[in-house]
Amino acid sequence: MDRIIRVDLANQKIIEEMAPKELNPLGGRALIDRILSMEVDPSIHPLSRENKLIFAPGLFAGTSVPNSGRLSVGAKSPLTSGIKEANSGGTLATRLARLGIKALILEGRSKSGAQMIVVKKDSISIVSAEDYAGFGNYEASRRIREQFGNHVALASIGPCGEMMMSAATIAISDTNGFPSRHCARGGLGAVMGSKHIKAIVVDDKGGSSQRPLNRDSFRAAVKEATEIIKNNPRTSFFRSKGTPGLIPIDNARGSLPTRNYRLGSFDRFQGLGAERMVELIKERGGKMGHACMPGCIVRCSTIFHDKEKAYLTSALEYETLAMLGSNLEIDDMDTVASMDRKCDDYGLDTIEIGATLGVLGETDYFDFGDKNKALALIDEIGSGTLLGRIMGQGVYVTCRVFGIDRVPAVKGQALPAHSARSMKGLGVTYATSPQGADHTAGFVAEDPLSPEGQVERSLQAQINMLLMDSLGLCYFCFLMGNIGLFTRLINALLGLNMREADVLNISKKALREEIDFNVKAGIPVNNFSLPKFLESEPLFPTNEVFDVPKDEIRRIFDSIL
Amino acid sequence: MDRIIRVDLANQKIIEEMAPKELNPLGGRALIDRILSMEVDPSIHPLSRENKLIFAPGLFAGTSVPNSGRLSVGAKSPLTSGIKEANSGGTLATRLARLGIKALILEGRSKSGAQMIVVKKDSISIVSAEDYAGFGNYEASRRIREQFGNHVALASIGPCGEMMMSAATIAISDTNGFPSRHCARGGLGAVMGSKHIKAIVVDDKGGSSQRPLNRDSFRAAVKEATEIIKNNPRTSFFRSKGTPGLIPIDNARGSLPTRNYRLGSFDRFQGLGAERMVELIKERGGKMGHACMPGCIVRCSTIFHDKEKAYLTSALEYETLAMLGSNLEIDDMDTVASMDRKCDDYGLDTIEIGATLGVLGETDYFDFGDKNKALALIDEIGSGTLLGRIMGQGVYVTCRVFGIDRVPAVKGQALPAHSARSMKGLGVTYATSPQGADHTAGFVAEDPLSPEGQVERSLQAQINMLLMDSLGLCYFCFLMGNIGLFTRLINALLGLNMREADVLNISKKALREEIDFNVKAGIPVNNFSLPKFLESEPLFPTNEVFDVPKDEIRRIFDSIL
Repeated sequence: MDRIIRVDLANQKIIEEMAPKELNPLGGRALIDRILSMEVDPSIHPLSRENKLIFAPGLFAGTSVPNSGRLSVGAKSPLTSGIKEANSGGTLATRLARLGIKALILEGRSKSGAQMIVVKKDSISIVSAEDYAGFGNYEASRRIREQFGNHVALASIGPCGEMMMSAATIAISDTNGFPSRHCARGGLGAVMGSKHIKAIVVDDKGGSSQRPLNRDSFRAAVKEATEIIKNNPRTSFFRSKGTPGLIPIDNARGSLPTRNYRLGSFDRFQGLGAERMVELIKERGGKMGHACMPGCIVRCSTIFHDKEKAYLTSALEYETLAMLGSNLEIDDMDTVASMDRKCDDYGLDTIEIGATLGVLGETDYFDFGDKNKALALIDEIGSGTLLGRIMGQGVYVTCRVFGIDRVPAVKGQALPAHSARSMKGLGVTYATSPQGADHTAGFVAEDPLSPEGQVERSLQAQINMLLMDSLGLCYFCFLMGNIGLFTRLINALLGLNMREADVLNISKKALREEIDFNVKAGIPVNNFSLPKFLESEPLFPTNEVFDVPKDEIRRIFDSIL
Repeated sequence: MDRIIRVDLANQKIIEEMAPKELNPLGGRALIDRILSMEVDPSIHPLSRENKLIFAPGLFAGTSVPNSGRLSVGAKSPLTSGIKEANSGGTLATRLARLGIKALILEGRSKSGAQMIVVKKDSISIVSAEDYAGFGNYEASRRIREQFGNHVALASIGPCGEMMMSAATIAISDTNGFPSRHCARGGLGAVMGSKHIKAIVVDDKGGSSQRPLNRDSFRAAVKEATEIIKNNPRTSFFRSKGTPGLIPIDNARGSLPTRNYRLGSFDRFQGLGAERMVELIKERGGKMGHACMPGCIVRCSTIFHDKEKAYLTSALEYETLAMLGSNLEIDDMDTVASMDRKCDDYGLDTIEIGATLGVLGETDYFDFGDKNKALALIDEIGSGTLLGRIMGQGVYVTCRVFGIDRVPAVKGQALPAHSARSMKGLGVTYATSPQGADHTAGFVAEDPLSPEGQVERSLQAQINMLLMDSLGLCYFCFLMGNIGLFTRLINALLGLNMREADVLNISKKALREEIDFNVKAGIPVNNFSLPKFLESEPLFPTNEVFDVPKDEIRRIFDSIL
């Protein structure tokens, strides 16, 4: 995997280079961090032609390492104005890896209307996508797959990306070819829209798996990884319950955002949890234990059918059920599933949109619990009405427009669906991550109500998760922090002799690059403000505020800078 | 002048204190900087109850120093998220000074509906303003003056402040009692709105001028100041032409923003200049050489009548004529005057709104030169339609909502009406001032097309202007930088023995406090990005880009930090 493909949109040219040796051990997020640091002026406008949008499989993509098919996409974010990597399962990373593509970089902006990049083994081309412009991800991907064959995998944007909304996602084909996986956070869909690229089509015919340089040792390490995953009790938890299994857990812990983050527990949470989902899937078809990407042996994904027993959406995740459900006091899985389908189709981050609807609940435009209105508001976003355009810019802009001073966001990005007040280690991550409020940037669940030790835990988690994002590993493979195993895998794959410390340093250096990028973009390194209400409003039912000492938080990155 | 009045809105209480001695030589902006630095957490939300809104006359207010009646108002800005001082002529500063009030501080937020603060010699009270809520500044102030007598002076907000728009102003009564002067920049009207205060009513009956401690020396210095002002040739220029006299000058220099800052010169500028104004005033009545505040001996203000020879607006300033005129390719003084009247009435910053309409000109919502549409759009802001709410948040939010990457703003605040590319020293001020893009924060006109020496000039101008803002002096008194004279005046007024360096240090310290506040608010000290288009698009007709060396700019405050 050593091809770096640059798509020069202004000149409509493809430039291919071999990755220089020093990029060898970098993949996914770490590779994106390096390229953005070297090539993008942090002070540019995120929607300007000077931004670059980078697609990078993780280092283990296209190998036999289980759960290694996650894709990283990165750019300067129109939502946070800082560096951004968003990642997703689905099938694209593996396809790119099978074509030997380490990074696909969209540069500049095409002058004409919507275009697509078509990536095949022996050719990469820029072609018109005018016929697909304006369509939702589902219809657009159906048509594009009709044109190129059902075996291709896509990255695409819906109308929200085309309208350059900061809550716009990039949809990635799942194993059934549906655009149900999303690089959701940070508005990367808007960056793709600003470049007038509707889709990237990847046909890996003729491609092949990555060949590890030291096969035996690689095979042994893969076997070990597989055993660890299979034997972890969480594997069966997630396979049988999916992430909706977290609904009762977060509810009991008091970390389930409810009613615009005013409560940490929802009295009607059962309508949103795994039990209800299992019941409905038994009735209607659909699936628990679905694999969103090739090589996944956990299979936390779900396929959800509507009342007519027809496919509606996949996966219906914890974050979506919380942000579009409890946070809006909507207790009904069918409604949330329809909202999810719409968000996937229009290309919208369900976390950002759930938070945005939540703050609208404090205006005349939305009442908590009003299911029809919630659905209608998402349609407004997708069709780009004025209210829709406001909401599509996410929670920060929506609060600006309506003069709301209780803004549930960090660095302009909405707080995710595990409340910081009842999960204080995660709160530290929200406050400090260069990615803005993001639960995938450093998940911490230990000793959730104590302010002690959380800064250290968050830093460790941020370093570990950056590594996972760089290797292409799903968090739910439960290999987090297994640096010894990762080191053996990398060494065997690439024929290197790295020590564990070297591997950790890749991650630390990437984190440093993210921080440096942000500093140059005008986001100071030690400005770690959480929304004030997290410090002043005790959260039902734990009655906790976020009280990790600020001085400690301020020093979180001292050891790596 | 040693009374500090705190209005505790949450508890509906007035707390009065004597200013501590160390605040003695501080007034206006420097006083605001000190109070905000000491009392307001820079990380709060600007519209939260933790913000404080401070009204402070300059140090010379209510004395015989000519042109010393400017009022400073300050808070954390909802537009820039940094520290903000906006100032204005009119009659309020003098009235406050005559009551011995050095600062009036609104704290917290009243729970009930709209209220007013009524300030009299022997009483200060918080009373209902429900009857005036929702009215424009003109009608509200007419009714309030009906209630309290025509002799009172007001600070008030229009519906845009009530709706907490970031482009909302605070209107100040002029010498005719009209709400035609505005603390316009930075959205301080929204802060007042967030506190539910519609107006401050000041009745100075029984008040008296400030009594200088050393009368003879004060009188001598005042006489000297008066002579300097009278003898400056710019005095007669501004008296006879007002600031519209600058229209042909900026046009010729290539610094007149035209068509969304795409040009520096407007082929139909004559319709906006002083000659046209003088002609219309001759026809219809109105006035050149109007004094906006007591004690003004320059009288640059104008009173503009409509076609029916009835009062329409005052003053119709250069910035308004450029931003709502040439920048929108509107060439007709009557239209701009009507737009100005609407902005004054709704309580809107004409600079921010001109810039916002300018970027809308690149969408389907506005066509350059469309006068009726321009008027209608301002009405949308005033009535709070969705489009109006977007525009009312200013140019940054409008660009976010419509996915526009050419954002004519610094620190979220619109570029004023002297183009940075053809006035490079002023461009340095736009880039660096803690106040965001603001021509009144450090005006530099020397050698405008050269990048050399501009950083030093801008710093000097920023220090000098901060001092003027603290003394309450209008820039058009042409005493800028006359530190010797200021020192004598301060010493004579307060019975002090300051040296010139001490006086300059007041200004430097205040500038440092502003920078520090911003740093703590998350705005890094050395992040001085101007919009990229100023560096990449040569501006007609000078064909210049902004090219002052960045390294030099980055070090601008080194000597004072």
